[in-house]
Amino acid sequence: MRNDALTYTRHHRAEALADLQELLRIPSISTLPESKPDMQRAAQWLADKLGEVGLQNIKIIVTAGHPIVYADWLKAGPTLPTLLIYGHYDVQPVDPLDEWLTPPFEPTVKGDNLFGRGATDDKGQLYIHVAAVEAYLKSTARLPLNIKFMLEGEEEIGSTHLDDFMQAHSDLLKADAALISDTHIADPDTPIIVTGVRGMAYMEISMRGSQHDLHSGGYGGNVENPLNAMVKLLASLHNEQGRVTIPGFYDDVRELTPAERQALNNGLVTEETILAETGAPALWGEIGYTVVERKSVRPTLDIHGIKAGFIGSGQKTVIPAAVSAKVSMRLVPDQNADKIAQLFTDHIQRISPKTMEVSVEKMVCGDGAVVDISSPAIEAAAEAYEQSFGRRPFYTREGGSIPVVGLFNKLLNIPSVMMGFGLPDDRLHAPNEKFHLPNFYRGIETAIHYYDIFSSKSN
Amino acid sequence: MRNDALTYTRHHRAEALADLQELLRIPSISTLPESKPDMQRAAQWLADKLGEVGLQNIKIIVTAGHPIVYADWLKAGPTLPTLLIYGHYDVQPVDPLDEWLTPPFEPTVKGDNLFGRGATDDKGQLYIHVAAVEAYLKSTARLPLNIKFMLEGEEEIGSTHLDDFMQAHSDLLKADAALISDTHIADPDTPIIVTGVRGMAYMEISMRGSQHDLHSGGYGGNVENPLNAMVKLLASLHNEQGRVTIPGFYDDVRELTPAERQALNNGLVTEETILAETGAPALWGEIGYTVVERKSVRPTLDIHGIKAGFIGSGQKTVIPAAVSAKVSMRLVPDQNADKIAQLFTDHIQRISPKTMEVSVEKMVCGDGAVVDISSPAIEAAAEAYEQSFGRRPFYTREGGSIPVVGLFNKLLNIPSVMMGFGLPDDRLHAPNEKFHLPNFYRGIETAIHYYDIFSSKSN
Repeated sequence: MRNDALTYTRHHRAEALADLQELLRIPSISTLPESKPDMQRAAQWLADKLGEVGLQNIKIIVTAGHPIVYADWLKAGPTLPTLLIYGHYDVQPVDPLDEWLTPPFEPTVKGDNLFGRGATDDKGQLYIHVAAVEAYLKSTARLPLNIKFMLEGEEEIGSTHLDDFMQAHSDLLKADAALISDTHIADPDTPIIVTGVRGMAYMEISMRGSQHDLHSGGYGGNVENPLNAMVKLLASLHNEQGRVTIPGFYDDVRELTPAERQALNNGLVTEETILAETGAPALWGEIGYTVVERKSVRPTLDIHGIKAGFIGSGQKTVIPAAVSAKVSMRLVPDQNADKIAQLFTDHIQRISPKTMEVSVEKMVCGDGAVVDISSPAIEAAAEAYEQSFGRRPFYTREGGSIPVVGLFNKLLNIPSVMMGFGLPDDRLHAPNEKFHLPNFYRGIETAIHYYDIFSSKSN
Repeated sequence: MRNDALTYTRHHRAEALADLQELLRIPSISTLPESKPDMQRAAQWLADKLGEVGLQNIKIIVTAGHPIVYADWLKAGPTLPTLLIYGHYDVQPVDPLDEWLTPPFEPTVKGDNLFGRGATDDKGQLYIHVAAVEAYLKSTARLPLNIKFMLEGEEEIGSTHLDDFMQAHSDLLKADAALISDTHIADPDTPIIVTGVRGMAYMEISMRGSQHDLHSGGYGGNVENPLNAMVKLLASLHNEQGRVTIPGFYDDVRELTPAERQALNNGLVTEETILAETGAPALWGEIGYTVVERKSVRPTLDIHGIKAGFIGSGQKTVIPAAVSAKVSMRLVPDQNADKIAQLFTDHIQRISPKTMEVSVEKMVCGDGAVVDISSPAIEAAAEAYEQSFGRRPFYTREGGSIPVVGLFNKLLNIPSVMMGFGLPDDRLHAPNEKFHLPNFYRGIETAIHYYDIFSSKSN
C-alpha cells in the first residue's frame, strides 16, 4: 500500500506544486483586519481540496477569530491509531514590500526554490500532508491509519482562539499523536526532529507625553520627548551581560545538567552557521551560553517596532505626543507566559518616568513545551526520515514558538511530533520567503512513510 | 497715508481671509518629493498675487530645490529705507492625518480661528505683509518706503539652497533691514519681539545588523536586534541630568551673566504656561536651568522617528535587518552647526557596537543668531506693536530655528526684525494647526504702522 502511494506521488509532483501555488496566491495575512475575506477564501480553498482528495466530514468551523478547517478519514477503524495533523493557513505580513524580488503572493519557481509568502511557513509544509493523503487515497482508496486534519488561521497572531476551540471540540480532536510540519531541518540532507519550542509573551507599551504633537524648537528641552523616554526605557531592559533586567524574569528558568548541555550542543548550529545565515558582522547574546542554548533553553527579549513621529524621507522637527513599541519575549518551557507578561507590565509601570502616561497591553501569550522522544509517535518519525533521507534525524529544541504544542500536551494529553521540512535560510517572516522544492517532494514521501510506520508501531 | 491704508484694510478683511484660504489649499509640503508640482503652484499663486496688489519686478527664481518668489516696489526712492520682507510658502507634513479634526488642506474657520496646515507657519503670517502692502497701494498708490519680498519654499527642510541664492543675488536683495513674521507672541494681547533663534543640526543614523529580516524565534538572543542596539545608543545620548553626552557638545555654549539671566526670565514663559500648553503630566529638562533658559540659550537633542520592523496593528515577530533614526539638535548662537554635526557623527561611530554596520548622514545644518535690539528697525517694531496692540512688546529669545536670520546677518549684514503674530497654542508642525484671526487682522495693521514708522526713524 505504501509503495502504491510513493509511486503515485512521484508521478504527480507537478500537480502538487500547482495546487500549492494556488493556495499561496491567497494573501491570508491573519494580523491585518482587511485580509478577513482572504482568510475566509483560504479556509474554503483548503476545505474544497480536502474533499477532493477523499477526506470526509469536512467542516469550516467559525471561531471568534479566523475559522478552523477540519476533515477526517476514520475508516482504518478503532484498532488502528489516529493521527491529528495540524497546520496553519495564515501567513505573516509582507512589509518591507520593496525588498521582495518577486511579488509575495505570486509564487515563483526559480531553480530548486519556490518563492512566496507562506511557501514554507506554513502553507507549503501543511500541503505536504494533503498531498501524502491524496497519494494513498487515489492509489489505494485507503490510509494505513485514521487521520484528522486541524488547520488554523491564527498561528501568526498567537493562536488566540485555539485554546477555546480545542477545549470545546476535544472529542472531535481525540487522537493518539499530533503531527506538525512547521519547523526546519539542518540542510537538504539532514533531518531534524524538534523536541521543544519556546513560549512567547508579546506586549505593546504605549506612552503619551503631551496632548498633541509639539515643535522641537519651542518645547525641546522642557517637555520630555516620548521617543527619548521610550528608548531609555527599552534600552534598560537588557544589561551589559545581554540578560533581561525584569525582576523575576529568570526565576523559573531551569539550568541544564552538564549531560543535557552536551546533548544539545550537537554541532548543528554554531556561531559560523548563524553568521553565514544572517550576514551579521558579529554575534551578540547572553554571556555564558552557547548559540544553541541561547536560541532554545534561554529566554530572550526583542523589540519589533517603535511607532511615533516622522519616518518619511526628509526631516520634520516634531516631538510626537505619543509613542508605542512592540516587544516580545521568547520563553523557555519552565516559564509561565502569563506570569512573565505580568512581571513585564509591573516592571514597565515601575520604571516609567512621571513625565509620561504609560500603558502596557498583553497581546499574545503562550507557553513553551518539550516532548518525550521515546514515544512511538516520535520513534516513527525518526524511521520515516531515515527511509526518505537515508539518515537518522538529529533531535533539537527550537527557538520559535508553536502555541499548539503546549495545547496538545495540556488539553489532549498527546505528544506533538514536530517533523519539519523547511531550511534555515528560508526567510520565514521576511522578504523573499522560499521553500526548497526537493524538500517539498521528499516531505510528501516522508509523510507517506510516517503514516504507515506509526500505524505498525502502535499496533 | 497710513490712515488710508488702515481704513482700507478694515474694509477688506473678508477678501484677505479668502485669499489666504486659497493659498492654504495648496499642499506645498516641501519635504515630500511628490509635492513638487504643488510647490510650483504655490510659488506661481504668490507671484500672481504680488502682481495683482501692485508690486513690480515679479520673479519666480529657480534654485537647485524649490523656487524663490521675488517682487519689489522701489518708487519711494533712494532717500527712504528699503525693507526686505521674508516669508516661506512651504509647510510641514500633515501626519498623523487621523488626528486632524478638519482636513489639513481645506482651511476651515471655527469661531475666531482658521484651521489648516500653514495657517500660522508661515502662509498666514507672510500673507499679512501682502495684505498690508495691498492696503497702501490700493488706497494711496504709494508705500512709505521701498519694499522687497523674498518668499522661499524650503524653510521647513532647513532652507537648504537659500545660502547660495542669497550669495548669488546679494545686489537684488540689498536692504536696510529684514522683516520676518514667523514667530509667536505671548497671547492675543501681548506682543513679543524675538531677538535670537537657535541653530540646528538634523541627522539620520542608519544601522544594519543582518542581510535580511530575521525571525525572532530562530535568531533572537544570538543576533543583535538593530532596534535593541539603536535604543541603547539613543538612550545614551542624554545623562541623568538631562544633558547631552556627546563629548565637546557644550564647549562653545556661553553661560549667561546674572544680568542676562534676569532679563531673560521675564515671567512670560513659566513651568505653568508650558504645562498648560502641552498637557504634559510633568516637565523635564537640563538640571540647573529655568524653562526659558532651556528653550532659548541651552542646546537640546530630540529623536523624531525610528524606522524599522513592524508598526501595524497586531503583531509580527521580526528582527529587522536595518533601522534608521532621525535626530536633531537645537543649537545656541555660539555653537557652530557643522562642528556639532561632526562631533555627533564621530561620537555615534565611536559608541556603535561591532554587531552593526553604522552610518550617519547630516541632513540639515544652520547656525543660530542674535540681533541688536537698539537698531532703528527693531525700535520701529516695538512702536508699531504699541500702536496696534496698545502695549510695548516683550523681548525674548526663541527655541526654534529660522536659518535665514543667520544668513541676513552673515551675507547682507542687516538686522532681522522678528515680528510675529502666532500664538503658543497654534500647533505648528502638528495636527490642527490654526491661526487666531484677530491676530491676522491686527498683524496687517501692525505691518501698516511698521512700514511708516521705520521709514520716519531712518530718515
